[in-house]
Amino acid sequence: MSSERVEVKEKVLSANDQVAAENRALLAAHGIYSVNMISSPGSGKTTLLERTVDLLKPSLRLGVVAGDVQTRNDAERLERHGIPVEAIETGGGCHLDARQVARTLALLDLPSTDLLFIENVGNLVCPSSFDLGESEKIVLMSVTEGEDKPLKYPAAFRRARICVITKVDLVPHLDFSTERAVDNARSVNPDLRFFFTSSYSGEGLEEWGGWLGERVEEYRRGR
Amino acid sequence: MSSERVEVKEKVLSANDQVAAENRALLAAHGIYSVNMISSPGSGKTTLLERTVDLLKPSLRLGVVAGDVQTRNDAERLERHGIPVEAIETGGGCHLDARQVARTLALLDLPSTDLLFIENVGNLVCPSSFDLGESEKIVLMSVTEGEDKPLKYPAAFRRARICVITKVDLVPHLDFSTERAVDNARSVNPDLRFFFTSSYSGEGLEEWGGWLGERVEEYRRGR
Repeated sequence: MSSERVEVKEKVLSANDQVAAENRALLAAHGIYSVNMISSPGSGKTTLLERTVDLLKPSLRLGVVAGDVQTRNDAERLERHGIPVEAIETGGGCHLDARQVARTLALLDLPSTDLLFIENVGNLVCPSSFDLGESEKIVLMSVTEGEDKPLKYPAAFRRARICVITKVDLVPHLDFSTERAVDNARSVNPDLRFFFTSSYSGEGLEEWGGWLGERVEEYRRGR
Repeated sequence: MSSERVEVKEKVLSANDQVAAENRALLAAHGIYSVNMISSPGSGKTTLLERTVDLLKPSLRLGVVAGDVQTRNDAERLERHGIPVEAIETGGGCHLDARQVARTLALLDLPSTDLLFIENVGNLVCPSSFDLGESEKIVLMSVTEGEDKPLKYPAAFRRARICVITKVDLVPHLDFSTERAVDNARSVNPDLRFFFTSSYSGEGLEEWGGWLGERVEEYRRGR
């Protein structure tokens, strides 16, 4: 990358960080625990969110910000589960940025929210560079993508604390070793915690949902 | 996006276009047909390339430029098939650009190449904006990614003339309608031509390889 491009990128990122800090303060003021979900297109973010919302909505007040390059399809799917959803259509943009999220937070009923899901644009590269003000970045990878993804796209795995491995019901039909995938991800980020889920069979969803519930509690106590 | 950022983006793209035109002229001077392969991470680009190389190397002189954010893994996998491969490690960059490809073309034996595969970074958004000087953009999507991808990431499907649907052996285990995927892709780009492949079962590979061989011939006659 030329030095001119690096400079522009640094300016954009530092402006973004400032707005992200404001988002973080606003969310903290309302005691809202928030997760920024990052993955490739088609790794199952929206379907996992649908299942998670059904699981948690009896006990927690949920909200979703759904980012997409084009269409409001994901937002519409999630709205059907009876929770507040705001869509961000980036119009070609390859990631969500803090300003887009700031404008969207203004549309949500923050005093009535415990847990906010931010579903980023499907892209395993760019979204990891942009802090949105979230409590936690969560990286997802489906078993169909192959075990090498953490090595080839390390930034997202390095900046997340949680890795959700999705579509585990398909493992019997694939040449995929969960152990190798975990080893690869840990070689990039030794502190990663894993959940192994299938939105189709339901495997692992109770554990994942339970962990989110605990994090909401911990976040409340910690502030 | 702010007008300042749009302006920067336009400047970067127009500088890229100039180098892409030089790459295109260089490839044409050597009669090399070249394809720029764009997809999500984990859609099976490298495995399809391995199978395609084995199929075509008895009759065509092949070369590969393999782009990755990090690691030379894909390049090493392809080198084992006994053809010239050059790796581009973008070091965090989310797409290949024309300048990177220009530097790499200088390392290849162009007079001894008929068909050049350029494997882009796994990213369904950013690579579609950057012309590399290729003859053809090819978009891949695996059946595990879901039928809605062309609607949600339209740019890559609009700028390609060919769509390779991969991993079709997994369809029986998925809730995936090939017909709906094709309809969605055609709603974005009515001129798209499709190949349906499985690198695992071998389905569709002869047809895809045959088409590439024909295109190399047509390209030679046309210049």
